[in-house]
Order: sequence, then structure tokens, then C-alpha cells
Amino acid sequence: MPIEKKATLLIKNIGQLLTMAGPAPRIGGSMNHLSLVENGGIAVAGEEILAVGKSDQVEGHTELAEGCTVIDARGQVVTPGFIDPHTHPVFSKTREKEFEMRVQGKSYMEIAQSGGGIRSSVRDLRETPKGILEEKTRGRLDRLLSYGTTTIEAKSGYGLSTESEIKQLEIIRDLNLVHPLELVPTFLGAHEVPDEYRDKRNEYIDLIINEMLPAVTKDGLAEFSDIFCEKGVFDIEESRRIQQAALDAGLKLKFHADELESTGGGELAASMDAVSADHLVYISDAGIRAMADAGTAAVLLPGTTFSLGGKQYAPARSMIEAGVPVALSTDCNPGSSYTESLPIVISLAALQMKMTAAEAISAVTVNAAYALDRHDRIGRLTEGFQADIAVWDMTDYRELPYHYGVNLASKVVKKGKVVVSR
Amino acid sequence: MPIEKKATLLIKNIGQLLTMAGPAPRIGGSMNHLSLVENGGIAVAGEEILAVGKSDQVEGHTELAEGCTVIDARGQVVTPGFIDPHTHPVFSKTREKEFEMRVQGKSYMEIAQSGGGIRSSVRDLRETPKGILEEKTRGRLDRLLSYGTTTIEAKSGYGLSTESEIKQLEIIRDLNLVHPLELVPTFLGAHEVPDEYRDKRNEYIDLIINEMLPAVTKDGLAEFSDIFCEKGVFDIEESRRIQQAALDAGLKLKFHADELESTGGGELAASMDAVSADHLVYISDAGIRAMADAGTAAVLLPGTTFSLGGKQYAPARSMIEAGVPVALSTDCNPGSSYTESLPIVISLAALQMKMTAAEAISAVTVNAAYALDRHDRIGRLTEGFQADIAVWDMTDYRELPYHYGVNLASKVVKKGKVVVSR
Repeated sequence: MPIEKKATLLIKNIGQLLTMAGPAPRIGGSMNHLSLVENGGIAVAGEEILAVGKSDQVEGHTELAEGCTVIDARGQVVTPGFIDPHTHPVFSKTREKEFEMRVQGKSYMEIAQSGGGIRSSVRDLRETPKGILEEKTRGRLDRLLSYGTTTIEAKSGYGLSTESEIKQLEIIRDLNLVHPLELVPTFLGAHEVPDEYRDKRNEYIDLIINEMLPAVTKDGLAEFSDIFCEKGVFDIEESRRIQQAALDAGLKLKFHADELESTGGGELAASMDAVSADHLVYISDAGIRAMADAGTAAVLLPGTTFSLGGKQYAPARSMIEAGVPVALSTDCNPGSSYTESLPIVISLAALQMKMTAAEAISAVTVNAAYALDRHDRIGRLTEGFQADIAVWDMTDYRELPYHYGVNLASKVVKKGKVVVSR
Repeated sequence: MPIEKKATLLIKNIGQLLTMAGPAPRIGGSMNHLSLVENGGIAVAGEEILAVGKSDQVEGHTELAEGCTVIDARGQVVTPGFIDPHTHPVFSKTREKEFEMRVQGKSYMEIAQSGGGIRSSVRDLRETPKGILEEKTRGRLDRLLSYGTTTIEAKSGYGLSTESEIKQLEIIRDLNLVHPLELVPTFLGAHEVPDEYRDKRNEYIDLIINEMLPAVTKDGLAEFSDIFCEKGVFDIEESRRIQQAALDAGLKLKFHADELESTGGGELAASMDAVSADHLVYISDAGIRAMADAGTAAVLLPGTTFSLGGKQYAPARSMIEAGVPVALSTDCNPGSSYTESLPIVISLAALQMKMTAAEAISAVTVNAAYALDRHDRIGRLTEGFQADIAVWDMTDYRELPYHYGVNLASKVVKKGKVVVSR
């Protein structure tokens, strides 16, 4: 006979339990299906979800282990722990001066050309000792967790040399081992051409392909390869070449695509079976169709448009209607979007991209898991899934976009352990 | 000889101390003057500021009382406690369903006409027992405090009957007595014409003048009188009549003005020597000139435009350049702007109204105090002023707008006592 599992954590009397059970990814109208249980309950055994349903049924059918943690979530909302599928969290220097320059009328490109932008974060990353970078990144992970996020994707891309790209990925690996937040590592050597290769960009591309990719895949330092595919950064042909090499090296693909102009990045991502294409403010209709056909996730970053003072947001409604799996992310980074809060991104998605609360919640749970190729393990609260759970101090899930700019996460559970409690 | 005061609280080694010393209000370029002290210190005796300056000088010249609290604010920013000069915090029911309707394309006016809007909060306020209203409001005050705010203006205006307007003002009075947050009470009986007076609006105006105003002034329940002066609510002549009666009853004046259309509300406020006119999205150039000449504070509410999904924000730059004293506020209310965070309002002021970080900080400290007629006591950190202080977890004050949607207040001091500590 199998050993019966006993509950080590029980959350009961949940006002609204959003299990998100159902297909992954959610597309079109299915993004509105939250599998909402009123007066719900969840039992957890160790790191895994044991049972989900009506509170009294879950309680009635579950044996509690000695010392089981019991949370009464009366009048509260429970969701899967949020998943943030696009962040650049490893940096030391913040760039508030550039933000103020933008407020005073300078463009992102002007600031970049005057030595700001990604290249200033590259100088910072290269110069700063690993210990300091780790400490500062840890503060951001703490804050991400406190806003209900339990898994993030974390990119390199401020090193742009083999040594310093590895330095970033090692920090991500090490923090993943010691921090409750789960980090999914992405290699982004093709974030920009570094200053020392300005006049010989092909040599930099060769360096990525021949030296960096073997180095970052050797010890499993990266799971994904990403590229800034944009006019003035890496064009379509360069992007195809680098990402094909990444695929050959065993990495899965992501793309920064169509952020500033429509360049065919969405189409390229779809044609290469990328797991996601991100940004997509200026994606073409053909790009949307290609992504829908390929099942490529669209990771939308309205916080970036907001924080850059932009007027045009990614066409979320067109994508949802066309059947693209839409996810949302903070894009947490020091240049264009410095926030650790997915709730403010949900507010922006509602107000600027007309996504309903249900669509936005789908986009930071089941669809964000899909955008990280982890939808068989996280992003939904069903039996056997990892027990990553957020408890929200609100009676109706629609308060998430509505009650903006504040933190309503009252408890956060990662792998069955309560890691935030307020 | 006078008794020497001893410090009961010392904040030392402050990375950037923004004392805001200087003229009140700040107008034009003077809004950029923060009186920033690097490596600053503040000594507090009881509820009052004893000394402000360089950390070592303050320490050297201050005798510490027994049990004095000492805070080391190395690498942090210190500002006056923020002041939020326009809130509607007393309500029970949140209105997230209306928010979602707006996301799906309904206008504010359509929602109001279908029974939503202010009138739904009026039903809620009248039906809900005082104890529940008090408990829910208290949660909001806690949250306001946790985001660095130490004083708010709090309006009635969801009662619209003598009894229920008093009920709201009594809740404000009672919470002010027991909660660390300081509440400045404003009577807003002229927020809307209640349903039972729809066909006899003049009788409602008479009720305000002849019954409500005497009732709310008798026991000092209100300090200000406010009115929603807007097409479809109270017109210019009605507003003049009601506010003149309020003046005669001893109240100071505020106006909801020019929010949805330019109706001359700003001009009326200036002509009646109002302390502030608020919203002002559609204020005319003549209105701006009149407010500058009269020294009427403009309380701008970019969170409201944001949360209503609007495109047009108040013309902050024109006002600053014309010499209007500009303040900022959350407009915290269940309909058009549900947030307790002035930091997110500062981000919106920067991104949508092109206010610098310094201008925005002036607008929530010295100028917000001016908009509440309390600039001789709060909003600046100078000797003899009330010890209302916020400590921010950032090395540069410009991080306030830049690092958006999160809470960076690490300590909040009200009347010399540490009331929030993280």
C-alpha cells in the first residue's frame, strides 16, 4: 500500500480561490476562466499540492501532519504564486538620473547615445564585485517575493563579455540556491554590441557563438537564449544566426522583438519555435498570426512603455483575439522599467491594454508558466503541482488592477513554505 | 534660565536629508529647492523638531534624553512625512466591478447614470454601521501611513443627508484621535445631489446651507468646505452660493474644479480666496492666472486620470510656470482612484505631467501643507516644526518617481514617534 501523504500546510475558508485549473496556455476567451472556488481550501504536503476544492471537503479528506501550518483565508483571495517571465535583476547602479532626463524631454535613444542606457549598466556590471551585485540583487528578489511573485526569469546581458556574462549567470544560479524565489536563467549576450566591438560587430557575434554559448551551456548556467532583435541592435539575419547557434547548443529561445519598430521579430520568433517573444509593441498583424499558429507566448511589458513615457502599448486585445498566449511581466531593469511589482503591471494592463482582471491574472500565472516552459509544474493550483501560492488581502480578485500602486499580498507560499507573512 | 530640551529621537548619518526649508508655498523654479543636506541629522524632542543639519553637528550639539531612539539612516533618504491633501477614505464597499466595466469600454458617466458612481457609495455609506465603516477606514489609514504619509485631508460627501454627513465627519474625528495619521476634516455635502432630491435640487442646496453647514460647524466637525463644481453636478452660481455660506459659517474653502470640462471653477475658487482648487484637468489659461494671482493652491490628482483611463492630465507645467502653488494627492476613493500611495502618484506626476522629482516632492510636502493651511507646522523639517518624518530606502531622492509601484518607505515618524518600521 502507498504511504498516505499528510498535509503540512492547510489554507482554508478562502473567500475566492482561483485555481486556474484548465488548459495551458490560455488563449482567447479561455483567459477569463479562473476556475474560481468560493469558500475554497488547499492542502499541501511538503512542496506539493495535495488537494484543492471546497474548504470543508479538503479539510474532511485530509489528515494533518504534526505541526501542520493552518491559514484561515476568510474574506481573502488566493491565486497561484505569480510568475514574472522577463526580468533583468542583476545590477548595482540604479539609473534614476536618466529617468529624470526623460521626464525633461530626452529620448531613450538620445540617452543611450550619450553613454547612458544599457551600456552604462554594462560598465556597472563589469566594475562591481560579485558580492555587492549579489547583495543588491537579493534585495530585489525579496521585494519581488513580497509582491506575490514566486518564480522569475532572470537574464544576463549587462556583461557582454564571456567572463562577465558568466559572472551574472553564476549570481543567478547562486541566488536560486539560497533564495525562496525560483530563478529561471536566460543568457542574453546579444543584448547590445559592447563598446570594444562597435567597429567589428561580426567579431562580437562570433564571440557569442563560438565562446559564450559553449561556456554558458557547459555547466547548465542558462536554460534560455534571448536576443535584442531591433533596428540598431541585432537585425533579423543576425538574430536568426545567433539564435540558431543557441538552439544547436541546447537552449530554448526568447526574443526581445518589435519593441521600438516593426522589424519582423515576432515572425522570426514564431518561425524558430521560440518559447516566447517579448515587448511586441509594434508587432505586425502577420507577426500576430505567426505567433498564434506557432503557439509562441507573447510576454507583454506595459510597465516599460509606461516608465519610458510612451503612448503606444502592445496590442494585447488583438493578440488575445487572434489566439496568441499572452503573458505579462515587469521587465524589472534599471533603465526602462524599475519595478518588482506585478500588481502594478496588472493595473497597467487593464488601463492601457484593456485586459480584464481575469485575463491579466491568467497572464501572470498559467500563461507566464507557459512562457517559461514550466506549465506542467507551476502557474496552476492543482494536485501534484508545486505549492506556490499567494494570499491577497481583498475580497474580490478584480481588486488587483483596481486598487493600484499598493501591495495587497498578505502571505506568500513557495514550495509549501510560508515565506512572506504580513 | 529656560529648561534645555533633550532629544527623544535622533536620526543620523542621513545620506540625503531633504529639509524643504525655504518659502511656503514653493512656486515656479523654487519647487526644485529641496534644501538637501548630505550626511544630515535630525534631533527631535517630544513632538517637535529640535535641530536639523549636518549629522555630526546635530549630534554634537544635542543632549540625548534617557531611552532616546537613535536611527542610523546611512545610505537612505529622509523627507518630511508626506501630506495627502485630497482623500475620500470613509467607505465600505469597493467598486472594482465599475473599474472592470470601464476597462471594457463604459464611460464614468455611463456607469454613474446606471446607478454606479458616487451614488452607489452614498447607498453604501448610509446603510453601513459606523463600526464597520470605521474599521475599513482604519485599514486605509494604516496603508497611507505605511507609504510615508503622515497627514491627510479627509472628506465627507458620501452621506448627502445631515445625519450621514455627520456620521462620516464623526468617524474622521474619532479616527484622528486614535490613529497616528493626522486627519484634516472637510465637509463635502455638495458632492452630488442625492436621489431623493433629484427633482428639487434647490431644496437640497437649501438643506446644505440651512441645516448641514450649521450642524457640521457647531462642534468643529469640519475645517474646510468643498464642492463638486462641474457641469451636471453643481454649476458656478450654485457653487458660489454654497461656498459663500460655508465661508460665512467659518469654514475655509476647497473646490473640485474643471475636472471634466472647463467651467470656470478655477477662477471661482481664486475669486473666493479658496485655499485650494483640485483636479483642474481642463482649467483655462485665465483660471491659471487667477489662481496664481490669488495664491490658491492647485491640488493635482494624476492618479484619477490614470485610473479612469483618461488621456488628458492637468497642465502641471503651465501652472508651475505661471506661479501657481502646485500640490499632489492620491484622491483616494472607491470610484475613480483607489490608492493610498503618494509614491505612485509621484511616478504619474513625472511620467504624465513632466514634473521633476524635486517638484513632485515639494508638491507632497511644503505645498501640500499649504493646500491644507498648515504650512506653519508641517511639510518642512525645521526647528520647531512638528516631527513628521519619512525615511526612504533609496540613496537618491530621484528614485521616488523612477522606482515605481513599490513601497520604499522604511520608517515613518509621526509627532516624534516611530509608527512604521520595516
